[in-house]
Amino acid sequence: MEHGGQWSSPAEIRAAVRKREFDRPTPGLAPGYAQANLVALPRKFAYDFLLFCMRNPKPCPVLDVTAPGDPVPLFAAPQADLRTELPRYRVYREGTLEKEVTDVLDLWREDMVSFLLGCSFTFEEALVKAGIPVRHVEEGMNVPMFVTNIPCRPSGVFSGPLVVSMRPVPAALVARAVQVTSRYPAVHGAPVHIGEPGLVGIRDVNCPDYGDAVTFYPGEVPVFWACGVTPQSVVMNSGTPFVITHAPGYMFITALRNEELGAL
Amino acid sequence: MEHGGQWSSPAEIRAAVRKREFDRPTPGLAPGYAQANLVALPRKFAYDFLLFCMRNPKPCPVLDVTAPGDPVPLFAAPQADLRTELPRYRVYREGTLEKEVTDVLDLWREDMVSFLLGCSFTFEEALVKAGIPVRHVEEGMNVPMFVTNIPCRPSGVFSGPLVVSMRPVPAALVARAVQVTSRYPAVHGAPVHIGEPGLVGIRDVNCPDYGDAVTFYPGEVPVFWACGVTPQSVVMNSGTPFVITHAPGYMFITALRNEELGAL
Repeated sequence: MEHGGQWSSPAEIRAAVRKREFDRPTPGLAPGYAQANLVALPRKFAYDFLLFCMRNPKPCPVLDVTAPGDPVPLFAAPQADLRTELPRYRVYREGTLEKEVTDVLDLWREDMVSFLLGCSFTFEEALVKAGIPVRHVEEGMNVPMFVTNIPCRPSGVFSGPLVVSMRPVPAALVARAVQVTSRYPAVHGAPVHIGEPGLVGIRDVNCPDYGDAVTFYPGEVPVFWACGVTPQSVVMNSGTPFVITHAPGYMFITALRNEELGAL
Repeated sequence: MEHGGQWSSPAEIRAAVRKREFDRPTPGLAPGYAQANLVALPRKFAYDFLLFCMRNPKPCPVLDVTAPGDPVPLFAAPQADLRTELPRYRVYREGTLEKEVTDVLDLWREDMVSFLLGCSFTFEEALVKAGIPVRHVEEGMNVPMFVTNIPCRPSGVFSGPLVVSMRPVPAALVARAVQVTSRYPAVHGAPVHIGEPGLVGIRDVNCPDYGDAVTFYPGEVPVFWACGVTPQSVVMNSGTPFVITHAPGYMFITALRNEELGAL
Protein backbone atom coordinates (compact mmCIF):
# COMPACT_ATOMS: atom_id res chain seq x y z
CA MET A 1 0.00 0.00 0.00
CA GLU A 2 1.23 3.46 -0.78
CA HIS A 3 1.84 6.06 1.85
CA GLY A 4 -0.71 8.77 2.57
CA GLY A 5 1.95 11.46 2.45
CA GLN A 6 2.05 11.52 -1.34
CA TRP A 7 -1.51 12.87 -1.52
CA SER A 8 -1.98 16.29 -0.07
CA SER A 9 -5.35 17.55 -1.27
CA PRO A 10 -8.80 16.11 -0.62
CA ALA A 11 -9.35 15.72 -4.38
CA GLU A 12 -6.11 13.76 -4.81
CA ILE A 13 -6.96 11.43 -1.94
CA ARG A 14 -10.48 10.91 -3.25
CA ALA A 15 -9.11 10.16 -6.74
CA ALA A 16 -6.78 7.54 -5.23
CA VAL A 17 -9.73 6.03 -3.37
CA ARG A 18 -11.79 5.94 -6.54
CA LYS A 19 -8.97 4.13 -8.37
CA ARG A 20 -8.68 1.60 -5.51
CA GLU A 21 -5.13 2.77 -4.78
CA PHE A 22 -6.09 3.52 -1.21
CA ASP A 23 -7.80 1.38 1.40
CA ARG A 24 -7.19 2.45 4.98
CA PRO A 25 -8.69 4.66 7.70
CA THR A 26 -8.61 8.38 6.98
CA PRO A 27 -7.62 10.05 10.31
CA GLY A 28 -4.67 12.37 9.79
CA LEU A 29 -5.17 12.64 6.03
CA ALA A 30 -5.62 16.01 4.28
CA PRO A 31 -4.80 18.08 7.38
CA GLY A 32 -6.97 21.17 7.66
CA TYR A 33 -9.88 19.68 5.72
CA ALA A 34 -13.07 18.42 7.34
CA GLN A 35 -13.88 14.73 7.22
CA ALA A 36 -17.49 13.60 7.32
CA ASN A 37 -19.70 10.71 8.33
CA LEU A 38 -21.99 9.36 5.58
CA VAL A 39 -25.59 8.23 6.10
CA ALA A 40 -27.46 7.47 2.85
CA LEU A 41 -31.08 6.32 3.03
CA PRO A 42 -34.23 6.28 0.87
CA ARG A 43 -36.03 9.59 0.24
CA LYS A 44 -39.05 8.21 2.11
CA PHE A 45 -37.08 8.48 5.37
CA ALA A 46 -35.11 11.64 4.54
CA TYR A 47 -37.51 14.21 6.01
CA ASP A 48 -37.74 12.50 9.39
CA PHE A 49 -33.97 12.02 9.46
CA LEU A 50 -33.25 15.64 8.48
CA LEU A 51 -35.65 16.79 11.20
CA PHE A 52 -33.96 14.43 13.68
CA CYS A 53 -30.63 16.07 12.81
CA MET A 54 -32.11 19.56 13.18
CA ARG A 55 -33.57 18.61 16.57
CA ASN A 56 -30.27 17.14 17.73
CA PRO A 57 -27.63 19.38 16.17
CA LYS A 58 -24.82 18.49 18.57
CA PRO A 59 -24.69 14.76 17.76
CA CYS A 60 -25.95 15.28 14.16
CA PRO A 61 -24.25 18.34 12.63
CA VAL A 62 -25.36 18.34 8.98
CA LEU A 63 -22.68 19.50 6.54
CA ASP A 64 -24.52 18.61 3.33
CA VAL A 65 -27.59 16.81 1.98
CA THR A 66 -27.76 15.61 -1.63
CA ALA A 67 -30.72 15.64 -3.99
CA PRO A 68 -32.39 12.21 -4.28
CA GLY A 69 -30.28 9.91 -6.45
CA ASP A 70 -27.52 12.48 -6.87
CA PRO A 71 -24.18 11.14 -5.63
CA VAL A 72 -22.56 14.62 -5.74
CA PRO A 73 -22.40 16.66 -2.50
CA LEU A 74 -22.65 20.08 -4.14
CA PHE A 75 -21.73 22.03 -1.01
CA ALA A 76 -19.16 19.83 0.72
CA ALA A 77 -17.24 18.62 -2.36
CA PRO A 78 -18.83 19.60 -5.68
CA GLN A 79 -16.46 17.42 -7.78
CA ALA A 80 -16.88 14.25 -5.73
CA ASP A 81 -18.93 11.07 -6.12
CA LEU A 82 -20.18 9.60 -2.85
CA ARG A 83 -20.59 6.16 -4.45
CA THR A 84 -16.87 5.58 -5.04
CA GLU A 85 -14.83 8.08 -3.05
CA LEU A 86 -15.04 6.69 0.46
CA PRO A 87 -12.49 3.92 1.12
CA ARG A 88 -15.06 1.59 2.70
CA TYR A 89 -18.82 1.46 3.09
CA ARG A 90 -21.21 -0.50 5.25
CA VAL A 91 -24.51 -1.69 3.83
CA TYR A 92 -27.39 -2.34 6.21
CA ARG A 93 -30.70 -4.02 5.41
CA GLU A 94 -33.50 -3.97 7.99
CA GLY A 95 -31.02 -2.72 10.60
CA THR A 96 -28.57 -5.60 10.06
CA LEU A 97 -25.08 -5.20 8.62
CA GLU A 98 -25.11 -7.04 5.31
CA LYS A 99 -21.59 -6.34 4.07
CA GLU A 100 -18.65 -3.99 3.91
CA VAL A 101 -17.69 -2.88 0.39
CA THR A 102 -15.28 -0.50 -1.37
CA ASP A 103 -17.86 1.12 -3.64
CA VAL A 104 -21.65 1.21 -3.83
CA LEU A 105 -22.13 1.75 -7.57
CA ASP A 106 -24.21 -1.42 -7.98
CA LEU A 107 -26.25 -0.68 -4.82
CA TRP A 108 -27.14 2.92 -5.63
CA ARG A 109 -30.81 3.79 -6.01
CA GLU A 110 -32.54 6.75 -7.62
CA ASP A 111 -34.20 7.57 -4.28
CA MET A 112 -31.04 7.60 -2.14
CA VAL A 113 -30.47 10.82 -0.16
CA SER A 114 -27.00 11.23 1.31
CA PHE A 115 -26.31 13.09 4.53
CA LEU A 116 -22.77 14.19 5.37
CA LEU A 117 -22.40 14.81 9.09
CA GLY A 118 -19.51 16.64 10.78
CA CYS A 119 -16.86 14.59 12.57
CA SER A 120 -14.82 15.25 15.69
CA PHE A 121 -11.49 15.13 13.85
CA THR A 122 -12.05 18.83 13.11
CA PHE A 123 -12.32 19.98 16.69
CA GLU A 124 -9.57 17.62 17.84
CA GLU A 125 -7.20 19.43 15.48
CA ALA A 126 -8.29 22.69 17.15
CA LEU A 127 -7.83 21.23 20.65
CA VAL A 128 -4.28 20.11 19.84
CA LYS A 129 -3.45 23.54 18.38
CA ALA A 130 -4.72 25.09 21.63
CA GLY A 131 -2.38 22.92 23.69
CA ILE A 132 -5.10 20.65 25.06
CA PRO A 133 -4.11 16.99 25.12
CA VAL A 134 -6.23 14.53 23.13
CA ARG A 135 -5.45 11.34 25.01
CA HIS A 136 -6.73 8.69 22.59
CA VAL A 137 -4.68 10.26 19.78
CA GLU A 138 -1.59 10.38 22.06
CA GLU A 139 -2.13 6.70 22.88
CA GLY A 140 -3.00 5.57 19.34
CA MET A 141 -6.45 4.41 20.42
CA ASN A 142 -10.02 4.93 19.27
CA VAL A 143 -11.88 7.57 21.29
CA PRO A 144 -13.87 6.12 24.24
CA MET A 145 -17.64 6.40 23.68
CA PHE A 146 -20.56 5.93 26.07
CA VAL A 147 -24.31 5.50 25.70
CA THR A 148 -25.91 8.06 28.06
CA ASN A 149 -29.33 8.24 29.69
CA ILE A 150 -29.99 11.51 27.80
CA PRO A 151 -32.74 10.92 25.20
CA CYS A 152 -32.40 12.56 21.81
CA ARG A 153 -35.42 14.57 20.66
CA PRO A 154 -37.25 12.04 18.44
CA SER A 155 -38.47 12.53 14.87
CA GLY A 156 -40.73 9.96 13.24
CA VAL A 157 -39.07 6.54 13.35
CA PHE A 158 -35.80 8.03 14.62
CA SER A 159 -35.19 8.04 18.37
CA GLY A 160 -32.68 6.83 20.93
CA PRO A 161 -30.15 7.88 23.53
CA LEU A 162 -27.35 10.36 23.04
CA VAL A 163 -23.94 8.72 22.60
CA VAL A 164 -20.99 10.79 23.81
CA SER A 165 -17.24 10.67 23.30
CA MET A 166 -15.00 11.33 26.31
CA ARG A 167 -11.65 13.06 26.56
CA PRO A 168 -9.79 13.52 29.88
CA VAL A 169 -8.79 17.20 30.22
CA PRO A 170 -6.58 18.77 32.92
CA ALA A 171 -8.87 20.76 35.25
CA ALA A 172 -7.11 24.03 34.43
CA LEU A 173 -7.72 23.53 30.70
CA VAL A 174 -11.40 22.53 30.80
CA ALA A 175 -12.65 26.10 30.27
CA ARG A 176 -10.29 26.48 27.32
CA ALA A 177 -11.55 23.20 25.86
CA VAL A 178 -15.11 24.56 26.07
CA GLN A 179 -14.07 27.78 24.34
CA VAL A 180 -12.16 26.05 21.55
CA THR A 181 -14.88 23.52 20.69
CA SER A 182 -17.69 26.10 21.02
CA ARG A 183 -16.23 27.62 17.86
CA TYR A 184 -17.14 24.45 15.93
CA PRO A 185 -20.92 24.00 16.17
CA ALA A 186 -20.81 22.21 12.79
CA VAL A 187 -18.72 19.43 14.32
CA HIS A 188 -20.40 18.64 17.66
CA GLY A 189 -19.61 22.03 19.28
CA ALA A 190 -19.26 22.58 23.03
CA PRO A 191 -19.26 19.67 25.49
CA VAL A 192 -22.66 18.35 26.60
CA HIS A 193 -21.44 17.35 30.08
CA ILE A 194 -18.33 17.94 32.21
CA GLY A 195 -17.39 15.76 35.19
CA GLU A 196 -19.87 13.61 37.19
CA PRO A 197 -20.31 10.78 34.65
CA GLY A 198 -22.93 9.08 36.85
CA LEU A 199 -25.40 11.91 36.27
CA VAL A 200 -25.74 10.96 32.60
CA GLY A 201 -25.85 7.23 33.23
CA ILE A 202 -22.15 6.43 32.77
CA ARG A 203 -21.07 3.93 35.44
CA ASP A 204 -17.34 3.82 34.78
CA VAL A 205 -15.37 6.14 32.51
CA ASN A 206 -12.78 3.37 32.20
CA CYS A 207 -15.29 0.98 30.60
CA PRO A 208 -16.55 2.59 27.37
CA ASP A 209 -19.45 1.12 25.42
CA TYR A 210 -17.56 1.68 22.15
CA GLY A 211 -13.93 2.48 21.36
CA ASP A 212 -11.04 2.08 23.77
CA ALA A 213 -10.37 3.00 27.42
CA VAL A 214 -7.70 5.70 27.77
CA THR A 215 -5.41 6.78 30.61
CA PHE A 216 -6.56 9.35 33.17
CA TYR A 217 -3.81 11.34 34.84
CA PRO A 218 -4.29 12.91 38.31
CA GLY A 219 -6.12 16.21 38.13
CA GLU A 220 -7.95 15.41 34.90
CA VAL A 221 -11.71 15.78 34.45
CA PRO A 222 -13.80 13.69 32.04
CA VAL A 223 -15.27 15.96 29.36
CA PHE A 224 -18.10 14.60 27.20
CA TRP A 225 -18.99 15.70 23.67
CA ALA A 226 -21.95 14.61 21.56
CA CYS A 227 -20.76 11.85 19.23
CA GLY A 228 -21.48 10.98 15.60
CA VAL A 229 -22.19 7.39 16.61
CA THR A 230 -25.56 8.72 17.87
CA PRO A 231 -27.17 9.09 14.41
CA GLN A 232 -25.64 5.81 13.24
CA SER A 233 -27.17 3.86 16.12
CA VAL A 234 -30.47 5.73 15.81
CA VAL A 235 -30.72 4.87 12.09
CA MET A 236 -29.80 1.22 12.69
CA ASN A 237 -32.60 0.95 15.29
CA SER A 238 -35.20 2.80 13.21
CA GLY A 239 -36.39 0.00 10.95
CA THR A 240 -35.16 1.87 7.86
CA PRO A 241 -34.96 -1.00 5.33
CA PHE A 242 -31.84 0.09 3.43
CA VAL A 243 -28.99 2.28 4.64
CA ILE A 244 -25.45 2.88 3.42
CA THR A 245 -22.86 4.43 5.76
CA HIS A 246 -19.10 4.88 5.82
CA ALA A 247 -17.21 2.13 7.64
CA PRO A 248 -15.96 3.40 11.01
CA GLY A 249 -12.75 5.40 10.52
CA TYR A 250 -13.07 5.35 6.71
CA MET A 251 -14.55 8.82 6.34
CA PHE A 252 -15.41 11.05 3.39
CA ILE A 253 -12.82 13.80 2.95
CA THR A 254 -14.63 17.03 2.07
CA ALA A 255 -13.36 20.13 0.28
CA LEU A 256 -14.41 22.22 3.31
CA ARG A 257 -11.62 23.63 5.42
CA ASN A 258 -11.90 23.10 9.16
CA GLU A 259 -11.55 26.84 9.59
CA GLU A 260 -14.65 27.43 7.43
CA LEU A 261 -16.56 25.34 9.95
CA GLY A 262 -15.12 27.47 12.74
CA ALA A 263 -17.04 30.56 11.63
CA LEU A 264 -19.66 31.46 14.20
CA MET B 1 -57.67 47.74 24.28
CA GLU B 2 -55.85 46.75 27.42
CA HIS B 3 -52.22 47.58 28.00
CA GLY B 4 -49.48 45.03 27.40
CA GLY B 5 -47.91 45.71 30.77
CA GLN B 6 -50.47 43.67 32.64
CA TRP B 7 -49.24 40.47 31.02
CA SER B 8 -45.73 39.47 31.92
CA SER B 9 -45.26 35.87 30.85
CA PRO B 10 -45.44 34.39 27.34
CA ALA B 11 -48.26 32.05 28.47
CA GLU B 12 -50.33 34.97 29.81
CA ILE B 13 -49.91 36.94 26.60
CA ARG B 14 -50.77 33.92 24.48
CA ALA B 15 -53.89 33.28 26.62
CA ALA B 16 -54.98 36.89 26.07
CA VAL B 17 -54.40 36.48 22.34
CA ARG B 18 -56.44 33.27 22.32
CA LYS B 19 -59.33 35.02 24.09
CA ARG B 20 -59.17 37.90 21.56
CA GLU B 21 -58.26 40.35 24.35
CA PHE B 22 -55.13 41.33 22.47
CA ASP B 23 -54.65 42.49 18.90
CA ARG B 24 -51.51 44.46 18.28
CA PRO B 25 -47.87 43.99 17.23
CA THR B 26 -45.70 42.05 19.67
CA PRO B 27 -42.35 43.93 19.78
CA GLY B 28 -41.40 44.74 23.36
CA LEU B 29 -43.75 42.15 24.88
CA ALA B 30 -42.49 39.44 27.26
CA PRO B 31 -38.98 40.87 27.54
CA GLY B 32 -36.33 38.18 27.66
CA TYR B 33 -38.38 35.65 25.69
CA ALA B 34 -37.79 34.82 22.04
CA GLN B 35 -40.42 35.74 19.47
CA ALA B 36 -40.73 33.71 16.30
CA ASN B 37 -41.82 33.90 12.67
CA LEU B 38 -44.41 31.31 11.59
CA VAL B 39 -44.42 29.52 8.25
CA ALA B 40 -46.99 26.70 8.01
CA LEU B 41 -47.25 24.71 4.78
CA PRO B 42 -48.40 21.28 3.57
CA ARG B 43 -46.27 18.25 4.45
CA LYS B 44 -45.63 17.72 0.75
CA PHE B 45 -43.41 20.83 0.77
CA ALA B 46 -41.96 20.42 4.28
CA TYR B 47 -38.84 18.43 3.37
CA ASP B 48 -37.68 20.89 0.71
CA PHE B 49 -38.40 23.82 3.02
CA LEU B 50 -36.59 22.25 5.97
CA LEU B 51 -33.62 21.56 3.72
CA PHE B 52 -33.78 25.16 2.44
CA CYS B 53 -33.60 26.34 6.05
CA MET B 54 -30.70 24.02 6.80
CA ARG B 55 -28.84 25.26 3.72
CA ASN B 56 -29.48 28.91 4.64
CA PRO B 57 -29.28 28.95 8.44
CA LYS B 58 -28.59 32.68 8.78
CA PRO B 59 -31.84 33.91 7.18
CA CYS B 60 -33.79 30.78 8.25
CA PRO B 61 -32.86 29.82 11.82
CA VAL B 62 -35.26 27.00 12.73
CA LEU B 63 -36.43 27.06 16.35
CA ASP B 64 -39.08 24.33 16.06
CA VAL B 65 -40.93 22.16 13.53
CA THR B 66 -44.26 20.53 14.40
CA ALA B 67 -45.53 17.08 13.45
CA PRO B 68 -47.98 17.20 10.49
CA GLY B 69 -51.38 18.47 11.67
CA ASP B 70 -50.15 19.09 15.21
CA PRO B 71 -50.63 22.75 16.22
CA VAL B 72 -48.42 22.36 19.33
CA PRO B 73 -44.76 23.43 19.10
CA LEU B 74 -43.40 20.87 21.58
CA PHE B 75 -39.97 22.44 21.87
CA ALA B 76 -40.64 26.17 21.64
CA ALA B 77 -43.86 26.33 23.72
CA PRO B 78 -45.26 22.93 24.68
CA GLN B 79 -48.55 24.36 26.05
CA ALA B 80 -49.35 26.57 23.06
CA ASP B 81 -51.64 26.23 20.05
CA LEU B 82 -50.29 27.78 16.85
CA ARG B 83 -53.82 28.08 15.37
CA THR B 84 -55.06 30.64 17.90
CA GLU B 85 -52.12 32.15 19.80
CA LEU B 86 -50.68 34.54 17.28
CA PRO B 87 -52.48 37.90 17.17
CA ARG B 88 -52.75 37.94 13.38
CA TYR B 89 -52.14 35.54 10.53
CA ARG B 90 -51.76 35.88 6.80
CA VAL B 91 -53.20 33.25 4.49
CA TYR B 92 -51.68 32.79 1.05
CA ARG B 93 -53.05 30.69 -1.81
CA GLU B 94 -50.90 30.13 -4.90
CA GLY B 95 -48.52 32.82 -3.67
CA THR B 96 -51.21 35.48 -3.34
CA LEU B 97 -52.33 37.01 -0.04
CA GLU B 98 -55.93 35.90 0.42
CA LYS B 99 -56.70 37.44 3.79
CA GLU B 100 -55.47 38.45 7.24
CA VAL B 101 -57.23 36.68 10.15
CA THR B 102 -57.03 36.40 13.96
CA ASP B 103 -57.14 32.61 14.09
CA VAL B 104 -56.76 29.76 11.60
CA LEU B 105 -58.89 27.10 13.28
CA ASP B 106 -61.18 26.72 10.27
CA LEU B 107 -58.25 26.74 7.83
CA TRP B 108 -56.15 24.12 9.58
CA ARG B 109 -55.37 20.92 7.70
CA GLU B 110 -54.14 17.55 8.89
CA ASP B 111 -51.07 17.88 6.67
CA MET B 112 -49.94 21.31 7.91
CA VAL B 113 -46.34 21.45 9.17
CA SER B 114 -45.44 24.58 11.14
CA PHE B 115 -41.97 26.08 11.18
CA LEU B 116 -41.02 28.60 13.85
CA LEU B 117 -38.04 30.68 12.75
CA GLY B 118 -35.93 32.91 15.00
CA CYS B 119 -36.45 36.66 14.86
CA SER B 120 -34.06 39.58 15.21
CA PHE B 121 -35.81 40.97 18.32
CA THR B 122 -33.63 38.58 20.33
CA PHE B 123 -30.31 39.92 19.14
CA GLU B 124 -31.51 43.51 19.20
CA GLU B 125 -32.12 43.11 22.94
CA ALA B 126 -28.53 41.88 23.23
CA LEU B 127 -27.20 44.80 21.14
CA VAL B 128 -28.97 47.33 23.34
CA LYS B 129 -27.64 45.66 26.48
CA ALA B 130 -24.14 45.92 25.01
CA GLY B 131 -24.54 49.65 24.45
CA ILE B 132 -24.87 49.45 20.68
CA PRO B 133 -27.57 51.76 19.28
CA VAL B 134 -30.44 50.16 17.34
CA ARG B 135 -31.52 53.11 15.24
CA HIS B 136 -34.94 51.99 14.00
CA VAL B 137 -35.97 51.22 17.58
CA GLU B 138 -34.69 54.62 18.75
CA GLU B 139 -36.66 56.25 15.95
CA GLY B 140 -39.80 54.13 16.33
CA MET B 141 -39.49 52.79 12.79
CA ASN B 142 -39.48 49.37 11.14
CA VAL B 143 -36.00 48.05 10.40
CA PRO B 144 -34.76 48.90 6.86
CA MET B 145 -34.50 45.79 4.67
CA PHE B 146 -32.84 45.24 1.29
CA VAL B 147 -32.95 42.54 -1.37
CA THR B 148 -29.32 41.63 -2.12
CA ASN B 149 -27.65 40.03 -5.12
CA ILE B 150 -26.56 37.10 -2.91
CA PRO B 151 -28.43 33.94 -3.96
CA CYS B 152 -29.66 31.58 -1.25
CA ARG B 153 -28.67 27.95 -1.69
CA PRO B 154 -31.81 26.48 -3.35
CA SER B 155 -33.77 23.41 -2.28
CA GLY B 156 -36.49 21.99 -4.53
CA VAL B 157 -39.03 24.69 -5.33
CA PHE B 158 -37.48 27.10 -2.83
CA SER B 159 -34.93 29.62 -4.13
CA GLY B 160 -34.34 33.34 -4.23
CA PRO B 161 -32.07 36.15 -3.10
CA LEU B 162 -30.98 36.82 0.46
CA VAL B 163 -32.84 39.70 2.09
CA VAL B 164 -30.90 41.60 4.75
CA SER B 165 -31.77 44.04 7.50
CA MET B 166 -29.48 47.05 8.04
CA ARG B 167 -28.47 48.84 11.22
CA PRO B 168 -26.06 51.83 11.25
CA VAL B 169 -23.32 51.15 13.83
CA PRO B 170 -20.60 53.59 15.00
CA ALA B 171 -17.32 52.42 13.47
CA ALA B 172 -15.75 51.83 16.88
CA LEU B 173 -18.60 49.51 17.89
CA VAL B 174 -18.83 47.38 14.74
CA ALA B 175 -16.52 44.66 16.09
CA ARG B 176 -18.55 44.52 19.30
CA ALA B 177 -21.76 44.21 17.26
CA VAL B 178 -20.24 41.21 15.48
CA GLN B 179 -19.25 39.62 18.78
CA VAL B 180 -22.63 40.17 20.39
CA THR B 181 -24.71 38.82 17.50
CA SER B 182 -22.32 35.91 16.86
CA ARG B 183 -23.58 34.53 20.17
CA TYR B 184 -27.07 34.14 18.65
CA PRO B 185 -26.77 31.77 15.67
CA ALA B 186 -30.41 30.74 16.29
CA VAL B 187 -31.58 34.28 15.48
CA HIS B 188 -29.62 35.25 12.33
CA GLY B 189 -26.20 35.31 14.08
CA ALA B 190 -23.25 37.38 12.90
CA PRO B 191 -23.63 39.99 10.13
CA VAL B 192 -23.39 38.76 6.53
CA HIS B 193 -21.85 42.00 5.22
CA ILE B 194 -20.30 45.14 6.74
CA GLY B 195 -19.90 48.40 4.81
CA GLU B 196 -19.77 48.68 0.98
CA PRO B 197 -23.49 48.15 0.24
CA GLY B 198 -22.86 48.23 -3.52
CA LEU B 199 -20.95 44.95 -3.37
CA VAL B 200 -24.13 43.05 -2.47
CA GLY B 201 -26.35 44.91 -4.92
CA ILE B 202 -27.67 47.64 -2.60
CA ARG B 203 -27.72 50.96 -4.47
CA ASP B 204 -28.69 53.29 -1.65
CA VAL B 205 -28.85 52.45 2.05
CA ASN B 206 -31.34 55.29 2.44
CA CYS B 207 -33.86 53.63 0.09
CA PRO B 208 -34.79 50.26 1.60
CA ASP B 209 -36.85 47.70 -0.32
CA TYR B 210 -38.94 46.99 2.79
CA GLY B 211 -39.36 48.80 6.11
CA ASP B 212 -38.29 52.38 6.78
CA ALA B 213 -35.20 54.50 6.11
CA VAL B 214 -33.36 55.46 9.30
CA THR B 215 -30.89 58.22 10.19
CA PHE B 216 -27.16 57.73 9.65
CA TYR B 217 -24.89 59.79 11.90
CA PRO B 218 -21.34 60.70 10.84
CA GLY B 219 -18.89 57.90 11.50
CA GLU B 220 -21.47 55.14 11.26
CA VAL B 221 -21.07 52.04 9.08
CA PRO B 222 -23.99 50.09 7.57
CA VAL B 223 -24.05 46.59 9.05
CA PHE B 224 -26.18 43.94 7.32
CA TRP B 225 -27.73 40.89 8.93
CA ALA B 226 -29.63 38.05 7.24
CA CYS B 227 -33.35 38.76 7.59
CA GLY B 228 -36.38 36.60 8.27
CA VAL B 229 -38.16 38.17 5.31
CA THR B 230 -35.95 35.92 3.15
CA PRO B 231 -37.88 32.67 3.83
CA GLN B 232 -41.21 34.52 3.61
CA SER B 233 -40.43 35.84 0.14
CA VAL B 234 -38.92 32.53 -0.98
CA VAL B 235 -42.07 30.64 0.09
CA MET B 236 -44.36 33.17 -1.60
CA ASN B 237 -42.44 32.76 -4.86
CA SER B 238 -42.25 28.95 -4.69
CA GLY B 239 -45.66 28.03 -6.03
CA THR B 240 -46.62 26.37 -2.73
CA PRO B 241 -50.44 26.34 -3.03
CA PHE B 242 -51.34 27.02 0.61
CA VAL B 243 -49.28 28.82 3.24
CA ILE B 244 -50.10 30.40 6.59
CA THR B 245 -47.70 32.90 8.16
CA HIS B 246 -47.78 35.43 10.99
CA ALA B 247 -48.70 38.97 9.94
CA PRO B 248 -45.60 41.22 9.97
CA GLY B 249 -44.91 42.35 13.53
CA TYR B 250 -47.55 40.02 15.03
CA MET B 251 -45.16 37.29 16.11
CA PHE B 252 -45.49 34.09 18.09
CA ILE B 253 -44.12 34.50 21.63
CA THR B 254 -42.23 31.34 22.58
CA ALA B 255 -41.40 29.94 26.01
CA LEU B 256 -37.70 29.98 25.06
CA ARG B 257 -35.56 32.57 26.83
CA ASN B 258 -33.33 34.68 24.63
CA GLU B 259 -30.41 33.57 26.77
CA GLU B 260 -31.13 29.91 25.93
CA LEU B 261 -30.65 30.85 22.28
CA GLY B 262 -27.36 32.51 23.19
CA ALA B 263 -25.68 29.22 24.05
CA LEU B 264 -23.00 28.42 21.54
